[in-house]
Amino acid sequence: MPIDQPNPKRRGRPPKARDTMMETRELLLRAGLEVLTEKGFSTSGIDEILGRVGVPKGSFYHYFDNKEAFGSELIERYAQYFAKKIERHLRNEMLSPVDRLKAFIDDASQSMERYAYRRGCLVGNLGQEAGSLPERLRAQLKNVFADWEARLSRCLNEAKTAGQIPASADTAQLASFFWIGWEGAVLRAKLEQRGEPLSIFAQVFFAVLGSAN
Amino acid sequence: MPIDQPNPKRRGRPPKARDTMMETRELLLRAGLEVLTEKGFSTSGIDEILGRVGVPKGSFYHYFDNKEAFGSELIERYAQYFAKKIERHLRNEMLSPVDRLKAFIDDASQSMERYAYRRGCLVGNLGQEAGSLPERLRAQLKNVFADWEARLSRCLNEAKTAGQIPASADTAQLASFFWIGWEGAVLRAKLEQRGEPLSIFAQVFFAVLGSAN
Repeated sequence: MPIDQPNPKRRGRPPKARDTMMETRELLLRAGLEVLTEKGFSTSGIDEILGRVGVPKGSFYHYFDNKEAFGSELIERYAQYFAKKIERHLRNEMLSPVDRLKAFIDDASQSMERYAYRRGCLVGNLGQEAGSLPERLRAQLKNVFADWEARLSRCLNEAKTAGQIPASADTAQLASFFWIGWEGAVLRAKLEQRGEPLSIFAQVFFAVLGSAN
Repeated sequence: MPIDQPNPKRRGRPPKARDTMMETRELLLRAGLEVLTEKGFSTSGIDEILGRVGVPKGSFYHYFDNKEAFGSELIERYAQYFAKKIERHLRNEMLSPVDRLKAFIDDASQSMERYAYRRGCLVGNLGQEAGSLPERLRAQLKNVFADWEARLSRCLNEAKTAGQIPASADTAQLASFFWIGWEGAVLRAKLEQRGEPLSIFAQVFFAVLGSAN
């Protein structure tokens, strides 16, 4: 559908009441999060989002300046939601640092299972389309990974202090390695519609943590 | 574009001369391989393939029974091409088994660099869309990964025999881990438009091989 350019008719149409506008906008964002964790930012994805909310194609620009602005808001929302999930586990002082990461992996794996491995990671899905994404969204996705890496790195440093991983371990590199591989595991879990790729990745990753590196 | 269902007009049109038909079919497959390593099997991808070859949308079914048959042939071709690349390196007896894997990674990394990190892995790209793929293509993609795993597993067993990795190493699990993570690294390299994710993944993977696991 042709929603790459702003609809020139936008300002010509009578606006809906502000409340209904905001409600529809919110519904579009929620449907967007659902659809974009299943598939990418492709045309079919956007069509499906509009279809779920019952918004006609031509009305998209009543709610968002353009497709890029919509995508940017979705990434921002997903990043906030996921940062909270990460922090809930990695800052949980009831567990040892390594067990916190295990708890995060269990939580994320259960989420995937709950949706029969159809939903993956919005950031990974969009990353796959990097070549055709607007530069602004690509930069935003890179920053999300950098944020996740920093949060994991901090937890791994605590594991080092606690003597759970060797003092020689390069925690920044390990955090980077984790998210690189985890996105691959999410992709394979979706393809195979089962959790085994997630558990194989986790098992070997924890073996890596325990050894020198 | 609506090419999910066979075009009922197919048999009604006068066929082109057989040679031209075969030539166009071949051009569509080649353009398909190019486009599908950059983006997925989405509508925009198919439009681009037809556009590159100059085939009008309506004529697609002169060349292929349906979109699924086209996708299946693309996966088959890519799998054959990639299996050759893997074997060229992993069976190279001039190098030690671990060095063979390093040579494969160097080759694959250079391929990505050559296309400015815009092209990734066709199997990974399609895997990302697993939820919306026909079951036949999903099964085909799973088999391709199983094939790559078997080829790498054999090489890792040779590394074990050569004393390059510990006798206790679970080579089947390590081979599985490699391809899970490698697809993640390819995805990140595309997102960041640089080779660092590939080299971080490789560096940690070789550290894993060297230690107990």
